[in-house]
Amino acid sequence: MSPDKASDARNIDLGPGKEFDIVRILLSEWGKSAQRIGDDAAIVEVPRGEKLVITTDTSVDGVHFRHEWLNHFEIGYRATAAALSDLAAMAARPLGIVIALTLPEADRVEARALATGIREGASAVLCPIVGGDLSSGKILSLTITALGSVAQPLSRAGAKAGQRVYVTGSLGGPAAAVRAWQAGKEPTERDRARFANPVPRIEPAVGLAQRGATSAIDISDGLIADLGHVAAASNVCIEIDVDRIPHVDGVSSLQAANSGEEYEIVATAPAIDTEAFAAEFGLALTEIGRVVAGSSGVELMKDGKKISAPPGFDHFRDK
Amino acid sequence: MSPDKASDARNIDLGPGKEFDIVRILLSEWGKSAQRIGDDAAIVEVPRGEKLVITTDTSVDGVHFRHEWLNHFEIGYRATAAALSDLAAMAARPLGIVIALTLPEADRVEARALATGIREGASAVLCPIVGGDLSSGKILSLTITALGSVAQPLSRAGAKAGQRVYVTGSLGGPAAAVRAWQAGKEPTERDRARFANPVPRIEPAVGLAQRGATSAIDISDGLIADLGHVAAASNVCIEIDVDRIPHVDGVSSLQAANSGEEYEIVATAPAIDTEAFAAEFGLALTEIGRVVAGSSGVELMKDGKKISAPPGFDHFRDK
Repeated sequence: MSPDKASDARNIDLGPGKEFDIVRILLSEWGKSAQRIGDDAAIVEVPRGEKLVITTDTSVDGVHFRHEWLNHFEIGYRATAAALSDLAAMAARPLGIVIALTLPEADRVEARALATGIREGASAVLCPIVGGDLSSGKILSLTITALGSVAQPLSRAGAKAGQRVYVTGSLGGPAAAVRAWQAGKEPTERDRARFANPVPRIEPAVGLAQRGATSAIDISDGLIADLGHVAAASNVCIEIDVDRIPHVDGVSSLQAANSGEEYEIVATAPAIDTEAFAAEFGLALTEIGRVVAGSSGVELMKDGKKISAPPGFDHFRDK
Repeated sequence: MSPDKASDARNIDLGPGKEFDIVRILLSEWGKSAQRIGDDAAIVEVPRGEKLVITTDTSVDGVHFRHEWLNHFEIGYRATAAALSDLAAMAARPLGIVIALTLPEADRVEARALATGIREGASAVLCPIVGGDLSSGKILSLTITALGSVAQPLSRAGAKAGQRVYVTGSLGGPAAAVRAWQAGKEPTERDRARFANPVPRIEPAVGLAQRGATSAIDISDGLIADLGHVAAASNVCIEIDVDRIPHVDGVSSLQAANSGEEYEIVATAPAIDTEAFAAEFGLALTEIGRVVAGSSGVELMKDGKKISAPPGFDHFRDK
């Protein structure tokens, strides 16, 4: 279903019960963004000639965000944007999201704010909300599954020696925001917004694919860690020039290289006119390195020499 | 991707890190059931002429199951079967599942058993595992999103006055198992299996659609509560003859009528030869009532008279 058909789609009447009262709050907040929610499963049409792309992403209170850092609008927005960002990594455009929400008693008064955040995160890339599941539980958790489609998906496995490495936007804001919160301070508005309100880079990623990109990933674990996945999947060596990594003020290049939850796109491609790209999408594109033959991995370079790479963010890393 | 293509599908090499070590355990356990896992999103082909059907379902420790009741194989199996059951409710056949797993430290040693259970739940209906997301967290939680396809989906909204109401299988086992556990006893093997190892009724549901069913729902909240959703969505009155509800030994008809997590299918259809159906699918089909005009709702009938209906299971019901 395309977003402009939203007004034709009717949501099914729900039975009685408190669980459904909360669903009704969510639906009233989603308005025309919600389509035919209430059946056992949602129905989605995949455009002819395109492949279905599907990705699922969980945000757990205390792991991916903290209650004390974000309000419920931001929690809903960010979880939605994070899931949709994985579609951008495949250069797919969104068809819909389904939302599995575990809502503790204490968060029920914030159901409406959560719903508004989810709606805005989806609307930012013209994505309808097509279904969901609501559970009680002790810890707030959102699992957003995003559906998209594309004729020729980008993969992590497509990087080829001789290509250049490009990244969208400017890195380090989310890490700076988390550092401020952890130090008991309020982050700058700019860093906070980069953490709380990322925009999935759908159209820029489609633009990269149109310019010949053959691999891409969205930066969720950190630039270096995510490029490690591309290098492993493609069996290539990726050299990154540390001094060319675009970063926000107050953050070093190395901090930017390890900042997670960025939701920018890093891609490998033949030479791209970065200025024309920036003009078309209103978003910086920076060449930061190259793909070379050699043993699979990422090498950080400074003044033409290799330096050692610190590890990226890993949820299961030893403390 | 059809299951028999599994051997052609290659999973992408993953980068280093403890999170990926657990993913590697899951993948080794899934074997050929897992297809191309490791990219940002999974790619699934929808058969031409069919619609994509998608559903998401969360199982949270302490809400949908208890650690003390089920082993990790059963937790994985049951969460997977519960999600796939929603495809059966639409008469859709599965194309794949994606799994968002929140795995606490204490459950990490059981990752392999969880994975085996998920694989067996999916294999029971020939469904491949196409993607996932792994998070740490304090409470074990599985959100399974199931994708399926069908030319003409069944809906909750299709019940029509004049139709009959049919239910598959025999109800009450899960409720009896939970009652036993709550009383500190071990349930019978049969009741325990009905709770721990439900089989999604995919082929029987397709068979019901082929026999003219126009509405269906899977019994997750309880027969009466779920028929309430059908009645509300279809704007009809559904009369159920209590004494005809098929139930396991040691459970009353009313207990069976309110037993949740059954994952049997209740459908409205013209007259069906239930004996021929049972012979074809190896599963009982019982006529239990009828759809009539009148105000939307469910009426329980005994000896031709209305009796009052107790409420079904509702996660958010007041204690």
